[in-house]
Amino acid sequence: MADFAIGVDLGGTNLRIAAVDIEGRLIEKVTLGTRIALGSARVLDDMCEAIRRLSEKYQDGSNLLGIGIGVPGIIDMETAMIRESPNLPGWSDTPVRKEIERRLRTRVILENDANSAAFGEKWLGSARSVDDMAIITLGTGVGGGIVLNGHIWHGMNGMAGEFGHTTIEPDGLLCGCGNRGCVEQYASASAIMRMAKAAIASGHAPALAKAASSDPEFSAKAVYNLAVQGDADARRIFQQVGRALGILIANLVNLLNLPMYVVGGGVSSAWDAFSPNIFGELRQRCMVYAATAPPSQTGDQGASARVDPQVSRNTIITRALLGSDAGLYGAARLPMIENQ
Amino acid sequence: MADFAIGVDLGGTNLRIAAVDIEGRLIEKVTLGTRIALGSARVLDDMCEAIRRLSEKYQDGSNLLGIGIGVPGIIDMETAMIRESPNLPGWSDTPVRKEIERRLRTRVILENDANSAAFGEKWLGSARSVDDMAIITLGTGVGGGIVLNGHIWHGMNGMAGEFGHTTIEPDGLLCGCGNRGCVEQYASASAIMRMAKAAIASGHAPALAKAASSDPEFSAKAVYNLAVQGDADARRIFQQVGRALGILIANLVNLLNLPMYVVGGGVSSAWDAFSPNIFGELRQRCMVYAATAPPSQTGDQGASARVDPQVSRNTIITRALLGSDAGLYGAARLPMIENQ
Repeated sequence: MADFAIGVDLGGTNLRIAAVDIEGRLIEKVTLGTRIALGSARVLDDMCEAIRRLSEKYQDGSNLLGIGIGVPGIIDMETAMIRESPNLPGWSDTPVRKEIERRLRTRVILENDANSAAFGEKWLGSARSVDDMAIITLGTGVGGGIVLNGHIWHGMNGMAGEFGHTTIEPDGLLCGCGNRGCVEQYASASAIMRMAKAAIASGHAPALAKAASSDPEFSAKAVYNLAVQGDADARRIFQQVGRALGILIANLVNLLNLPMYVVGGGVSSAWDAFSPNIFGELRQRCMVYAATAPPSQTGDQGASARVDPQVSRNTIITRALLGSDAGLYGAARLPMIENQ
Repeated sequence: MADFAIGVDLGGTNLRIAAVDIEGRLIEKVTLGTRIALGSARVLDDMCEAIRRLSEKYQDGSNLLGIGIGVPGIIDMETAMIRESPNLPGWSDTPVRKEIERRLRTRVILENDANSAAFGEKWLGSARSVDDMAIITLGTGVGGGIVLNGHIWHGMNGMAGEFGHTTIEPDGLLCGCGNRGCVEQYASASAIMRMAKAAIASGHAPALAKAASSDPEFSAKAVYNLAVQGDADARRIFQQVGRALGILIANLVNLLNLPMYVVGGGVSSAWDAFSPNIFGELRQRCMVYAATAPPSQTGDQGASARVDPQVSRNTIITRALLGSDAGLYGAARLPMIENQ
């Protein structure tokens, strides 16, 4: 068996641990519930036990190259402490890496989950053909990661890629971070739910109102389903999502002129409902995009698959390919790169 | 004499050529008017004659390391053609580098003027102590340059750093580029003049109206002088400039988490009139800034001079030190770096 690494995706809901070989093949994946309520020590116990089990199981004949762990929130790269993590309440200032290394008696690499996802898409997903790319991850919140020259761009304190809190409406909605008009207020699953509730409250969104009252698990996914069925109110919500992302990506193109921008995270499964608006904003707002857009770019997967940005030097906007596994594969990739 | 390089700053008004030694000492600087009306061939003739004269004069006993040329507008790095340049009308698609190399019979390095300014400030100015920085240049328009790991970040086609055309007001003022709400519409000398004229037209800005009618060369500088004298209408204009820059820089901090952001260009001489609003916006809009701002950062030169970002890992926002010479020194630096 080829040498392998262990990747971990520590989410607020699920804790996933995978052994992945150097070719990107999944050897084994374990999914546990994240027992947040029991506190960080128990969650780390669960994680480390699973890591130990997987690493012992496959070390017979192959080398374990290392362990990479993607965690949500802002990590201080120097101290490897979590600074801010809405998905891991109570973990602020937990010395996560130190606690894991104490349990495992070996070094681990800690990384922000969006950065891990960027790395996963760069390794095995949409961005395989490029060395420079950004990912925008749409989940409960909006995260991001930037890869430059094949390496994650951490910035000075590991806080780069905070796409969700860039301002796109200076006098817009108040965000939990204290700012107004953050991207996250317009393009996250939470934002979709807020817009759906506002539409229902207006009394003029009958299909949304019906879905909300009949479905106890009414969610952004349900809003998407209505949009796909052609409901104008649901469609309008995803147009807002696309507009916000379009403004963000136009700004990214103007600032960084990267060959590829990937939209990932759970909400990216609604790509066909919001991507036309991304492209509309880009065409209007970004000379650089207008000068570098591939003629064929319509936003569908096919278009981006046909274009090799290394050759064409075009600006490609596309959806992530690995879905929720991007962060897991990217985390496994971290020790492979570091050992090269 | 130490080895030297020749730097050129090709502006829409002035054409400046300097011989600079490897320690950053100015040997000789020549300033010519840019004879735009005579066409690009004549301007390039003037430039090349001055380059030849300087290089012959000082090559006795020292090595000419090369020639770097900063030009305004978007340059396609691959073809070294100017794609867009409002300051050099009629130069679009001129093969500038090829034309210069044909005249001089030697290689030259072409660079965007804001990137050259970034490089100048990194070499000899405000950003001497950092390897990663961005510069925002405020002139007739708003330009920008990004330095990462000590090198200019060009992006895939040399179009990175288009700060002036990032969107800060999605439904804001129409820009020449076709977008609405570009930074350039709020933070350039042109924007200052537009706001001054609008204030005068309102009939409620007596000091501005008086200055405009009595001064045939009424300019952004005159508006600044009134702001310094305490005129509320003039001050309000610079508050708008600071707000726009604050939103832009907050976004840059969120995206890139760099240790230093430098504000340069002619309008930056009004730093004390607009910088308080930059810091106000940053504190409100940017968690990363709030977590990394130096306690002493008040926006004045003194504060930034006291902080060593390599040690403190703080986010420093400061004004450029080299004024209009940043681009000239940065252009001279280009061949020195390339020959290292």
